[in-house]
Amino acid sequence: MKPVEVKRKILRISDGSAIGEVDSIVTEYPVTIKVNGEEFVTMICSPEFIEDMVIGYLASEGIIQDCDDIKEIWIQEKAGFVHVNTRKDNPYFQHFQNKRYVTSCCGMSRQGFVFASDARTAKKIDGIHVQITSDKCFSLMNDMQSRAGVFHQTGGVHNAALCDENGVILCRMDIGRHNALDKIYGHCLKNNISVHNKILVFSGRISSEILIKTAKIGCEIVLSKSAPTELALKLAEELGITVVGFIRDSSLNVYTYPQRIIPERNI
Amino acid sequence: MKPVEVKRKILRISDGSAIGEVDSIVTEYPVTIKVNGEEFVTMICSPEFIEDMVIGYLASEGIIQDCDDIKEIWIQEKAGFVHVNTRKDNPYFQHFQNKRYVTSCCGMSRQGFVFASDARTAKKIDGIHVQITSDKCFSLMNDMQSRAGVFHQTGGVHNAALCDENGVILCRMDIGRHNALDKIYGHCLKNNISVHNKILVFSGRISSEILIKTAKIGCEIVLSKSAPTELALKLAEELGITVVGFIRDSSLNVYTYPQRIIPERNI
Repeated sequence: MKPVEVKRKILRISDGSAIGEVDSIVTEYPVTIKVNGEEFVTMICSPEFIEDMVIGYLASEGIIQDCDDIKEIWIQEKAGFVHVNTRKDNPYFQHFQNKRYVTSCCGMSRQGFVFASDARTAKKIDGIHVQITSDKCFSLMNDMQSRAGVFHQTGGVHNAALCDENGVILCRMDIGRHNALDKIYGHCLKNNISVHNKILVFSGRISSEILIKTAKIGCEIVLSKSAPTELALKLAEELGITVVGFIRDSSLNVYTYPQRIIPERNI
Repeated sequence: MKPVEVKRKILRISDGSAIGEVDSIVTEYPVTIKVNGEEFVTMICSPEFIEDMVIGYLASEGIIQDCDDIKEIWIQEKAGFVHVNTRKDNPYFQHFQNKRYVTSCCGMSRQGFVFASDARTAKKIDGIHVQITSDKCFSLMNDMQSRAGVFHQTGGVHNAALCDENGVILCRMDIGRHNALDKIYGHCLKNNISVHNKILVFSGRISSEILIKTAKIGCEIVLSKSAPTELALKLAEELGITVVGFIRDSSLNVYTYPQRIIPERNI
């Protein structure tokens, strides 16, 4: 597999002086998913945990319910194809093939949901099953960022972590906003890790697409360093998800379902 | 038209104390483009300059060459549809409808170009027609950021500016990475503004998709606060584009075609 970052010579200009340096650059790896022999979608990702990503993506799109629905999956690495054969033909497949696709990185919704698959697979969460303190929000964000480590050098990648009240369970990065979430989801499905009562930490903006992905995974709380969009908040209200944004230094914003966040200061 | 941002009540927790506040939140507006009656694509954008965006998008996809190819265009605002009738059927249209679409925000390429349209519409730039100093890179970036103004409050939007050696010509924002570029391109096409020998300033990461979009518009230099990807640099080399990244404080990185950037310190 291609590495997720490569070294490259660059020219660094600082205070008017130019000097040659070697810098780390993230790679992009195009993956085309073929389901039962038919091209389904092409996504560009960071080349690691590809199988997890494909499983998570297909589950979040409602093509599979769980890993048992997959008869076989294999990666044609050089060509960038992932072949998935499912146990049964999916009745929704034709729908996807012929219907519009979203080209924005924050795509997805008209009147809440544009695609039938979202309405089917984004689960509404009833009740409060997990509560965390505001201090825990900071520590989970810090924990994710420190684990992300090397990728912060090159900038421009998205980090995501699945957490519970005790800390980070799983951390993934990707150059594509939602790929990191698909990698987490796929890993959980493959390894029978429950995603219920969990918290999702994300480095980027919470768009409607990220919110829907959070709901599909089944997390109750999503934490971000960045801002949510209005549509994401509307969907969060509908789907019962707590959105926390702008987690920076010692302050944060709670946008929806504040019952899950307990203000608490670390003394 | 829906506003690009709305006010919303939030709960702000700072140092363990919670207080109700009103915050600005960016909106997402789904636009489905119908070309000659057929659904072409759905994109989620910030609701301003929609017609420009659609024109820029269709031109960059090779569906139209210029505005003369459009017989009529009208916006069905509430439903979020933009109807475009072209003077002639496009031979490539069927290709788009039936072929895979990219779902990542940084999507697009396998072996350089995945889609036929990119190879057709991304122009290779031969020669050096524009040169700027490193100080100009900083001032163009600062200029764009100060014009972006209010949207920085809410975070999470992308800003882009078309510039020449003298300064910023046109500035656009959008929640979608490439929509801001499409809005610039569409404006130029509509108003017969030459895009040659120009500089593009972008607030976000330079992915392969952004690089291809830059080439389609026809700019020679792209400046960013953030990092480029490896594939974007490979394409920049092929397409003759200077990529400058990590423009911060008094330093920047030049990744390709450094001949266009003259190291110069402001004394």
